[in-house]
Amino acid sequence: MTISLKRRNALAIMSAKAAYTELTQHYTRLHRFNHLAAMVGWDRSAMMPSKGNDARSAAEAELNALIHRTRTDPRLAEWIGRAEDEDLDPVERANLREIRRDWRQANALPESLVEAKTLAEARCEHAWRTQRQANDWQGFLPNFQAVLDLARQEAQLLADDTGLSRYDALMDRYEPGVRAADIDRIFGDVAGWLPDLIAKVRDKQTHEQVITPAGPFPIERQRALSKAIMTRLGFDFDAGRLDQSTHPFSGGVPEDVRITTRYREDDFVQSLMGTIHETGHARFEQNLPRDWLGQPIGLARSYGIHESQSLSFEMQLARSPAFAGLLSPMLSEHFGHQPAFEAANLARLLTRMRPGFIRVDADEITYPAHVILRYEIERPLIEGEIEAEDVPALWDRKMSELLGLDTRGNYRDGCMQDVHWPLGLFGYFPSYTLGAMYAAQWFASMRRNRPDFDDQIAAGVLTPVFDWLQTHVWSQASRWETPELVQRASGSDLDPTHFRRHLETRYL
Amino acid sequence: MTISLKRRNALAIMSAKAAYTELTQHYTRLHRFNHLAAMVGWDRSAMMPSKGNDARSAAEAELNALIHRTRTDPRLAEWIGRAEDEDLDPVERANLREIRRDWRQANALPESLVEAKTLAEARCEHAWRTQRQANDWQGFLPNFQAVLDLARQEAQLLADDTGLSRYDALMDRYEPGVRAADIDRIFGDVAGWLPDLIAKVRDKQTHEQVITPAGPFPIERQRALSKAIMTRLGFDFDAGRLDQSTHPFSGGVPEDVRITTRYREDDFVQSLMGTIHETGHARFEQNLPRDWLGQPIGLARSYGIHESQSLSFEMQLARSPAFAGLLSPMLSEHFGHQPAFEAANLARLLTRMRPGFIRVDADEITYPAHVILRYEIERPLIEGEIEAEDVPALWDRKMSELLGLDTRGNYRDGCMQDVHWPLGLFGYFPSYTLGAMYAAQWFASMRRNRPDFDDQIAAGVLTPVFDWLQTHVWSQASRWETPELVQRASGSDLDPTHFRRHLETRYL
Repeated sequence: MTISLKRRNALAIMSAKAAYTELTQHYTRLHRFNHLAAMVGWDRSAMMPSKGNDARSAAEAELNALIHRTRTDPRLAEWIGRAEDEDLDPVERANLREIRRDWRQANALPESLVEAKTLAEARCEHAWRTQRQANDWQGFLPNFQAVLDLARQEAQLLADDTGLSRYDALMDRYEPGVRAADIDRIFGDVAGWLPDLIAKVRDKQTHEQVITPAGPFPIERQRALSKAIMTRLGFDFDAGRLDQSTHPFSGGVPEDVRITTRYREDDFVQSLMGTIHETGHARFEQNLPRDWLGQPIGLARSYGIHESQSLSFEMQLARSPAFAGLLSPMLSEHFGHQPAFEAANLARLLTRMRPGFIRVDADEITYPAHVILRYEIERPLIEGEIEAEDVPALWDRKMSELLGLDTRGNYRDGCMQDVHWPLGLFGYFPSYTLGAMYAAQWFASMRRNRPDFDDQIAAGVLTPVFDWLQTHVWSQASRWETPELVQRASGSDLDPTHFRRHLETRYL
Repeated sequence: MTISLKRRNALAIMSAKAAYTELTQHYTRLHRFNHLAAMVGWDRSAMMPSKGNDARSAAEAELNALIHRTRTDPRLAEWIGRAEDEDLDPVERANLREIRRDWRQANALPESLVEAKTLAEARCEHAWRTQRQANDWQGFLPNFQAVLDLARQEAQLLADDTGLSRYDALMDRYEPGVRAADIDRIFGDVAGWLPDLIAKVRDKQTHEQVITPAGPFPIERQRALSKAIMTRLGFDFDAGRLDQSTHPFSGGVPEDVRITTRYREDDFVQSLMGTIHETGHARFEQNLPRDWLGQPIGLARSYGIHESQSLSFEMQLARSPAFAGLLSPMLSEHFGHQPAFEAANLARLLTRMRPGFIRVDADEITYPAHVILRYEIERPLIEGEIEAEDVPALWDRKMSELLGLDTRGNYRDGCMQDVHWPLGLFGYFPSYTLGAMYAAQWFASMRRNRPDFDDQIAAGVLTPVFDWLQTHVWSQASRWETPELVQRASGSDLDPTHFRRHLETRYL
């Protein structure tokens, strides 16, 4: 009989994937807890009044403990083991790979090390806030040494577990499948031509006339402009919001993406470019495949790939001369016309190189120098080839080589400027520059065989960009590890030549 | 040795309260989960874009299941039993009483009944939305009958568990310690004098001249006015927010209270009075004793007592002639001056009686009629003395008696107007009018031996009001059951005479 046959098949499928099914249900529950964490986290940054802090911290800690218990549920190891032998299709197998990755990250460290790390990082970060202001490297050093020691222990345990080197094991959390050997090759290439490029651009821009927009720019109009540009860039306001926070970020969940910006009355450019940057992150999230939502395979792939979306929007698209022509009338509409809003001037304004001490203030040409420098210090730090006390001298030498800047004695604007190391976030910095390079490679792929690509953008036709990203990045979520995603999307491994050509074309 | 003695004492205290300590830790965890539920619930109503709904529902359902598991943890029964015999101080014993109440409410019903209720109520409420519009009583009746049958089963189980009557057992969830016998006495008294009072006020107001404010009133200015009045009324913006939602409410947690309002460009009064109403709820929450936060004793006492705070702010204070003098310059400041904003006119405007079909649109004089009517129907419904099909005829008879209105055939604006019954919320309605009466009794207590009370308010000195509420209500949280709180605060049981005198003084 048909019915009994159907049912027998169903049962067979069920039993053939029993462990995998348990895993997906478990991860769906975890996904919902993460949904709650995302929303109250966004609320804390964008909505919460100051006196809500203690109660919120307690509630979030309770939720984080619950999430940790869910990720370390003792049944998971057995389910993962059994699921490996079940009859899974390729997508399910990729999901299982991501489940295993998540499980390994949650279970690799003993409780005691997690606690010690949390304490040491909280102490270091807290003291760093005042020590950085006071330029107090000697005060910072013992706390930082403690954080580094624990990060090395963590790296060793992850390395033992994965067979990777210590630094690779840390970096794999942010950029799955990318190794220090790749980074050495890529960053080595960039370090070879970047100082010369910076010198040439400096020479060229010295003679450029740029008119600075004259403020003030009322916050309400900036907000309206931000929303208009987000709409232009395809942000779905039925599935997300724009709000304000001290530090702009993209949060929420794929069905309800919350991005934030901050406004200054005297300068709209920083806020506008920040909004466009976060809109790139947001569109990735909003367009993750709905079929996979709730499972690890449905999450956005890696920090670097995520950054490739924000930088596709901000650097490749919004700071291009073609886009300046689209931006120009929108600025006049919201703030009234002024000469600075002419497209040609805008294009120059949005591509000014500003070599300086501070990474987060850097432009797209000098930014990689800041990242290479950090990578070249944190990799040997983690591998135990150098010690914490060696950092300032190395920092100064590399700043001098790469950007020609003297940072001697200036710890505040030197090796103490970032929150990453005080928080024990080693292996994270490369993702920023990988993102810039992926983005350049995406746009090189888009332009291939499309001589009218930039004309289309200038004419306001942005769908070729969005369609390409949708097909090659957004819809792929965590289907592949990063190197395979790059290969499939662009037809080759990550190649810094695309990034170099992008910079040379735009700036020389 | 001192140390060992200290430690021995500590251990003795620990073991003397071991079960109670387990309970408090368990309820602290529950409190944090409820914090998360409050924040994502507020977000859903005030912030969430439409496409976030499905994922949010799934996440909230997961959280609610977790909260339910926490409230029904099998260890609780044993801890509660053992804690009864432990050496607790009076506050701890009151907390244990509230823990037992919460435990009983969470555990009284078998899972199957909870599920059946959830389903029947969702079906009834969903159909009601269109059936009410279509005035379709016959379509509504079978769904409502199903909800009623399950509510009766629930009431019976709660009655068996508590020894109360069926209706009392339901009402105890909203108004702990108040019984139908009390309500009969109080509402009987009101029903005796209310129709005559309504007739007299109608006669008096027929001859009154009232100038209606002329709009439009821009939303931004209304928002600024709302925030100004909230500040005037002591709302702490470092511990809360004002936002917008379709249905105004007060939510969040005591450390971070979120109230909402809605605006209409053509009428600011409804929004303003709504904001003041919610500010009363909010100040109760913001001033709950910090020492008890996280424990059931630290929660606001009962729906009626909560409503007594919103009505203290809206009815007793904000609609008084003394307060109109304070409001008048604030309106002129935000909207520009107009004759309608003169204090005497404002006082008349804010005390217009509007007898009508709809409870939520009612003024403070006719509102009790709506509640008495519902109480006199839902009590016998739950006790099984009447049936669902009897409701329309009873409704019509009582509407005619109390307000002189004919509702025959008008189910939409009659017995189908409220969402409470479709949702199975029986025993809730009395709290609204109890709140109005408590508020009148609070203000009678404040005025006792203070002949200058109203002059002080007219002079803008509101601290006597806030201090009284702080001392007698806010700081007491759930320390006492409702009747004892009333007795301690005002020196007597709830006495409807205060409410009657308030109405007669203000309206005759």
